[in-house]
Amino acid sequence: MDSGHGAPVTTGLYVGRFQPFHLGHLEATKFILSRVDDLVIVVGSAHDSHTLENPFTAGERITMIRLGLKEGKIDPNRLTVLPLPDAEFHKVWVAHLLSQTPAFDEVFTNEPLTGRLLKEAGMRVERIPMFNRTSYTATEVRRRMLTGKNWQELLPRSVSAYVKQIKGDERIREIAQTDKAG
Amino acid sequence: MDSGHGAPVTTGLYVGRFQPFHLGHLEATKFILSRVDDLVIVVGSAHDSHTLENPFTAGERITMIRLGLKEGKIDPNRLTVLPLPDAEFHKVWVAHLLSQTPAFDEVFTNEPLTGRLLKEAGMRVERIPMFNRTSYTATEVRRRMLTGKNWQELLPRSVSAYVKQIKGDERIREIAQTDKAG
Amino acid sequence: MDSGHGAPVTTGLYVGRFQPFHLGHLEATKFILSRVDDLVIVVGSAHDSHTLENPFTAGERITMIRLGLKEGKIDPNRLTVLPLPDAEFHKVWVAHLLSQTPAFDEVFTNEPLTGRLLKEAGMRVERIPMFNRTSYTATEVRRRMLTGKNWQELLPRSVSAYVKQIKGDERIREIAQTDKAG
Amino acid sequence: MDSGHGAPVTTGLYVGRFQPFHLGHLEATKFILSRVDDLVIVVGSAHDSHTLENPFTAGERITMIRLGLKEGKIDPNRLTVLPLPDAEFHKVWVAHLLSQTPAFDEVFTNEPLTGRLLKEAGMRVERIPMFNRTSYTATEVRRRMLTGKNWQELLPRSVSAYVKQIKGDERIREIAQTDKAG
Amino acid sequence: MDSGHGAPVTTGLYVGRFQPFHLGHLEATKFILSRVDDLVIVVGSAHDSHTLENPFTAGERITMIRLGLKEGKIDPNRLTVLPLPDAEFHKVWVAHLLSQTPAFDEVFTNEPLTGRLLKEAGMRVERIPMFNRTSYTATEVRRRMLTGKNWQELLPRSVSAYVKQIKGDERIREIAQTDKAG
Amino acid sequence: MDSGHGAPVTTGLYVGRFQPFHLGHLEATKFILSRVDDLVIVVGSAHDSHTLENPFTAGERITMIRLGLKEGKIDPNRLTVLPLPDAEFHKVWVAHLLSQTPAFDEVFTNEPLTGRLLKEAGMRVERIPMFNRTSYTATEVRRRMLTGKNWQELLPRSVSAYVKQIKGDERIREIAQTDKAG
Repeated sequence: MDSGHGAPVTTGLYVGRFQPFHLGHLEATKFILSRVDDLVIVVGSAHDSHTLENPFTAGERITMIRLGLKEGKIDPNRLTVLPLPDAEFHKVWVAHLLSQTPAFDEVFTNEPLTGRLLKEAGMRVERIPMFNRTSYTATEVRRRMLTGKNWQELLPRSVSAYVKQIKGDERIREIAQTDKAG
Repeated sequence: MDSGHGAPVTTGLYVGRFQPFHLGHLEATKFILSRVDDLVIVVGSAHDSHTLENPFTAGERITMIRLGLKEGKIDPNRLTVLPLPDAEFHKVWVAHLLSQTPAFDEVFTNEPLTGRLLKEAGMRVERIPMFNRTSYTATEVRRRMLTGKNWQELLPRSVSAYVKQIKGDERIREIAQTDKAG
Repeated sequence: MDSGHGAPVTTGLYVGRFQPFHLGHLEATKFILSRVDDLVIVVGSAHDSHTLENPFTAGERITMIRLGLKEGKIDPNRLTVLPLPDAEFHKVWVAHLLSQTPAFDEVFTNEPLTGRLLKEAGMRVERIPMFNRTSYTATEVRRRMLTGKNWQELLPRSVSAYVKQIKGDERIREIAQTDKAG
Repeated sequence: MDSGHGAPVTTGLYVGRFQPFHLGHLEATKFILSRVDDLVIVVGSAHDSHTLENPFTAGERITMIRLGLKEGKIDPNRLTVLPLPDAEFHKVWVAHLLSQTPAFDEVFTNEPLTGRLLKEAGMRVERIPMFNRTSYTATEVRRRMLTGKNWQELLPRSVSAYVKQIKGDERIREIAQTDKAG
Repeated sequence: MDSGHGAPVTTGLYVGRFQPFHLGHLEATKFILSRVDDLVIVVGSAHDSHTLENPFTAGERITMIRLGLKEGKIDPNRLTVLPLPDAEFHKVWVAHLLSQTPAFDEVFTNEPLTGRLLKEAGMRVERIPMFNRTSYTATEVRRRMLTGKNWQELLPRSVSAYVKQIKGDERIREIAQTDKAG
Repeated sequence: MDSGHGAPVTTGLYVGRFQPFHLGHLEATKFILSRVDDLVIVVGSAHDSHTLENPFTAGERITMIRLGLKEGKIDPNRLTVLPLPDAEFHKVWVAHLLSQTPAFDEVFTNEPLTGRLLKEAGMRVERIPMFNRTSYTATEVRRRMLTGKNWQELLPRSVSAYVKQIKGDERIREIAQTDKAG
């Protein structure tokens, strides 16, 4: 594609689960947009929800991403956000991804298996620098939700408000109960 | 629905895996039948079998339930027993349940995720009181089968005889062997 | 199993889709119960619904069967009614059936593929005599629903009332509309 | 949600397959945007492609929609475009849809089964007026591609150019060949 | 790979359903082996069986192929025969094929969709010349089985004997009966 | 089947995952071939790959088996090598296996669940003697690949060379990295 100024438009792909979308994801998005013209954000494990690892539905995560990017004043013309269910088997995941997304030039991911599968299929893969690594991980956010610590400070303000509205932290604590009837 | 005596018939739903059906399940059934007119018993994870968590097939579990309820002198006119395979994803499980069962008014379950999903879908959910909690769990029954302890005392007599007949305790011990060839 | 009178109890299996349950199905059930002690009725294609061939959900069909058998004064102690989703492939269907049903001695079906698969697996298969063949088919019932003819006379009275209550005939006519937006 | 001006924001949902996205779809989008504040466009049958009914992948269809809406000068801030694979069974499709989309208030569709399922689940469903009905259907576009007629005039100019670029018309003609080796 | 004589070994891939394996398939195999060193024969739609289009299981078809190739005096060192289930969606079929087969250099097929998908993935695809086209198609063989005509003359003698042994022609006729109970 | 010398031909089935094919597998194959005339080797979990337990695709494993058996001078006329995807549920696995393989007389396996399922289906199952048990397990080979120890000495020379060529050891180490972006 042509940007209209002579140089070709480059499109990046950013793959994540966004459980939930936090300030580190927002920084990563800004970093990638400093490297490419357009960006396709892929919400992985899209069918999964209501587990400790994947508490939020794809619809909820897309809502979070849209709120967070708006708060971060990212131009919506440069972005596409898409859900992607897991493929049944690793070796067909790349073909599955290609069938569900607009064309792209390079992929940004830090997940080793995702990177390996894309490289074996001949794709160009780049790592994303870590921003305040210790706190800005979704694992840390979910850990704080579970233990009643301050998780709100790790999220964009509008995303934090949305999670409260849908009682997302309550959901995680309820799922974590293991008092099964047997 | 109308009972024919002016008062509407209420139908309860009882969801469990029944691996295997034990005396606590029988007590729970009696408790629920003291609260509703009719009862639909749903045998969850119906396609699963031959694992340590789910050793028995749905067909075997339905046979156990029918034997146990007959021994408990429960009126068969008030009962429907149905197998339900797991849904591929949590968020569609309630829709899946509704498509496979007769209409019901309230659900009885102690499993937190099941309860959460039903409540998010607007259903009325009630907990079941625990009867002799320490021993009357399927986990304890399977543990005793595995270690050769007295599991028979935890089951209705006819169910215990059926498990012996299909060599259910031997199956669990055989599955538990981890001497894989590599 | 033993009937308690010295003679072994025989169990029959009756496989059908029951879209919907009509008077011919009731006659067939009575015929089979004259041949065996207990009967397992399997509601096939259980996950399917809202198509012209399979308009009703498994839950709705089980409700119809229970109403029809009660109206026909069939003893509920002799019956088990179970939904069975289609297997992904024909050749594993029998194993799938066996995993979801209590043990049985012989199968009653007039469907050629079902009969073939059961016979290839070594099962005993018997055909069901046709009762007033021309009218008593589910295909005829659905045809009349679609064209506004008298379908009620082909169903047990209580089943007919239930189909009206859930607006089943309206559903079929609505699904049949092919005015797609393109 | 609140628009910030006191009135609540209303969100519409537009479900289609967009095989391919044509001028009628563009008119429909403008019509819906005259009725709601925000719009979620759902690309149905997302996993399907390379058939006569569904020749284009979800990624290709999303690219078409983005091109067409840009050409139609639709504000991207008001839109979300999402792929949705078919559910395995009709009766869980609505739950599946709800899990993959942001919250919405009403649905716009002319497809009878889609409408029926949404209404049975308690959703508000509205029909879309037809714009130049005879020609503006995807069926007509695919028919013209197959027979070498002028299909370009039925598509937004940029969508037409994209289909040519990916040789979409050639693909349809090649799939239609039925000279199988046997 | 190196043949040990300086020239690289070339491997061909031959995709078919082989319902059943007939003399035309044997001729095609000989033709391909005149063009490549090694050959991988892929038995497609491997999970399907007991339908009019796919009457035989993959295991039965592999048995036929082994018998036919032995009768045709093909060197088993040059051959690999593998079953391949259909992929759920066309666009991932090539990735699925690549994950299940040894590496190959070119594909031989006359099926348009198979050819299209392989070419879109950058594979080299060649057509197979037709040998006595009118009779040597699996469609014709199945038609003769169904109508009681001489199908044996179209198959290698040992394959014909095997089909008789497993009563394959009887199976097709039985499946074709459409006298459903309704 | 008849061997042509009066005695019937016996066929054995050898089920494994072969992750990767090592010298113990070669010894086991020779042992089984001393007991039966023909052998079907089934490559289980065929769709799985790129995990720590199942690093190699079915195509790669079939290539290894062919190389190893050739190096071991096993007569290819006596062998069939087939991939088998896992069945969705344990209780249909045997039916699934039977649909994908040529007929066989007895099964050789040391995996307890596989053996249990086959025995419940009435099959004859035999254990395989262990050859230099401590080292000759696929678990040990993968452990050495992961930790950079000498894994090559546990594989047939040609298989070892193939694994190096496809950078199989590098793949395992890359998959094992757990530095996820969160």
